[in-house]
Amino acid sequence: MPKVAVVAYGHTKFSNEDLKIESVLLRATKNLFDSTPNLEQKDIDSVLVSTNNNSKYLSAILSEMTGIQPKIAHSVESLCNSGTNAIVSAYSYIASGLADVILISGAERYDSPGQILEWDNMRGEFKHPIFWASIFSKAYKREYSISEEDLAIVPVKNHKHAKKNPNAFSQKTISIEDVLNSKKLTEDLRLLDCSRPCTGGASILLTSEEFCKKFCDSPIWITGIGQKTTSASFTKNQGFDKMESTKQAAQMAFQMSNHSSENIDVMEVHDAFSVCEPIALESMGFSESGGGIKMIKESYSSENFKINPRGGLLGTGHPLGATGISQTIEIVQQLQFKAEKRQVETASVGLVHNMSAAATSSTVLVLEN
Amino acid sequence: MPKVAVVAYGHTKFSNEDLKIESVLLRATKNLFDSTPNLEQKDIDSVLVSTNNNSKYLSAILSEMTGIQPKIAHSVESLCNSGTNAIVSAYSYIASGLADVILISGAERYDSPGQILEWDNMRGEFKHPIFWASIFSKAYKREYSISEEDLAIVPVKNHKHAKKNPNAFSQKTISIEDVLNSKKLTEDLRLLDCSRPCTGGASILLTSEEFCKKFCDSPIWITGIGQKTTSASFTKNQGFDKMESTKQAAQMAFQMSNHSSENIDVMEVHDAFSVCEPIALESMGFSESGGGIKMIKESYSSENFKINPRGGLLGTGHPLGATGISQTIEIVQQLQFKAEKRQVETASVGLVHNMSAAATSSTVLVLEN
Repeated sequence: MPKVAVVAYGHTKFSNEDLKIESVLLRATKNLFDSTPNLEQKDIDSVLVSTNNNSKYLSAILSEMTGIQPKIAHSVESLCNSGTNAIVSAYSYIASGLADVILISGAERYDSPGQILEWDNMRGEFKHPIFWASIFSKAYKREYSISEEDLAIVPVKNHKHAKKNPNAFSQKTISIEDVLNSKKLTEDLRLLDCSRPCTGGASILLTSEEFCKKFCDSPIWITGIGQKTTSASFTKNQGFDKMESTKQAAQMAFQMSNHSSENIDVMEVHDAFSVCEPIALESMGFSESGGGIKMIKESYSSENFKINPRGGLLGTGHPLGATGISQTIEIVQQLQFKAEKRQVETASVGLVHNMSAAATSSTVLVLEN
Repeated sequence: MPKVAVVAYGHTKFSNEDLKIESVLLRATKNLFDSTPNLEQKDIDSVLVSTNNNSKYLSAILSEMTGIQPKIAHSVESLCNSGTNAIVSAYSYIASGLADVILISGAERYDSPGQILEWDNMRGEFKHPIFWASIFSKAYKREYSISEEDLAIVPVKNHKHAKKNPNAFSQKTISIEDVLNSKKLTEDLRLLDCSRPCTGGASILLTSEEFCKKFCDSPIWITGIGQKTTSASFTKNQGFDKMESTKQAAQMAFQMSNHSSENIDVMEVHDAFSVCEPIALESMGFSESGGGIKMIKESYSSENFKINPRGGLLGTGHPLGATGISQTIEIVQQLQFKAEKRQVETASVGLVHNMSAAATSSTVLVLEN
């Protein structure tokens, strides 16, 4: 299969600013152009937008605002998993030969309509994601004798990492006690267990092997792709202490890249809520079932940045359509040894895990330098 | 490049029914399954949805409703051009090797938010497509000394064709006089010059060469793809009696397929308004500038179905996200010699032309049997 590289990226600070979606897309894309001296508008032959915003024709609008006249131009939506879906779509346009240089821009406002799971009438009135996260938390704690205090290590670690990420929403250090004393939203979920919806954008440039060297000395290759949708409704999920779609997506991505969980040096994992991080690690085979928290605690105490160096969703914030692209940018920076204060020591193979709606769908990417 | 085939399709009747978008997607997809005896849910590895509807996660929802657990699943939006964008995206997933069997379902409600061009502040208060269509009509009539009566042949022909299409919204025969006596919406546009927003769905199944024979004895191949976005704003359009994006998309599709306008036996053209059909024909090279109406009149008087056999958008109705897929289904049926009362005599090479927002973006597909 033809090789596809990530060669450039741009990012906005994640915030609670009241910006129009077009402005967020533009800011992230301007940042990409500003940091890529050799890039001209005419080099770009396709523009994909990733968002849950209700505005239409955003790929054409972003193209006009930035002076690009692309061949392929459309929006991609799959809730929180939109950004990685757009990256996989761009990968396929390049690998199929239909395009060579693709700009993907993800953006969201703090009030995104993707935050309410409107369609699932089986949820009754419980359409906000905190309700599925709460059920996951209860099931996971009960199944593996995990305490609320054990789970609190996830936001503590990820806020710590986010402090070293200038684009992250959170710049605060929080303690286990802060998590345990934060507002109780449900019986099994507190405020600091939840990622924060925010306004933010992230843009990334993918190219074919032939074009990558024009823009970048250290292209990062997408070598593994796995995707799976098991359902749309939470109630069809198989078990509330596992993520079946994540498991299958990881298996596909590992198979395609000829790697396994043992080879992964650094990863971004979709920690929309504290409990998601250990379950995702277990579902991808990084630990046995119930062992995710132990792995996270060891990572925290040894002060390495292997798991969610960017700060994850808990520390960085969660602008839905931008998240998967922001995650990918972090892994690219790690593999380019450009992650500054967040840099892991060894970085040859990285992983991105993104998902939607109680892990009813997941994407896993493997990247290599 | 690996070959990609259309092997199955399903369609709803286009109507003004007040259905939920999920129901429209489901109806079109059920129709596809019902007409494809060998198809099982587990054969389908990807599901794309094409729509302007504001509902999220529709690809996962359609998958759950139909019992499919796909790898790739997301929505695609690019206004009226969404359906053909989704087809091109599916093509690239298959040609790149990421997928083998992809269901694409397009659907819209009569009250689609894609009918108002909200973003373009340069339009002042004139955000409804009738205003750009009116300016195109004025410019085209003036430039080539075309009369209102000349243009009226387009809806007359397309309503005539639609009468032979059981899924079309219009089942009425209309005359030149009917068009000229219909309600005047602007100085240069009457009601029967406009396609009708409606509720409708169309689903299509694309496969790799390896899988096509399981589902179909007469696969139709997508051999040419062209796409171009020149702007988002109408005011950046180059000339109001031409379609630059359509011209470039056609050139790309002809080059890729090694065909020219002379080889095309049958085509669906995006006639959102009467004036669009001759301009699109001219921009794709089927006639010299200003000669489109003559070509349409000849086609009408010789009673052939070469141009918009389905009835175009004017006769069939225009449910935005479904339109490009419905157009493609028509050309597939023609190339399979299954178009019944609309069948053209010779059908080896067919063409689909779709576009958005005053032809600021266009897609052209070439299909062959």
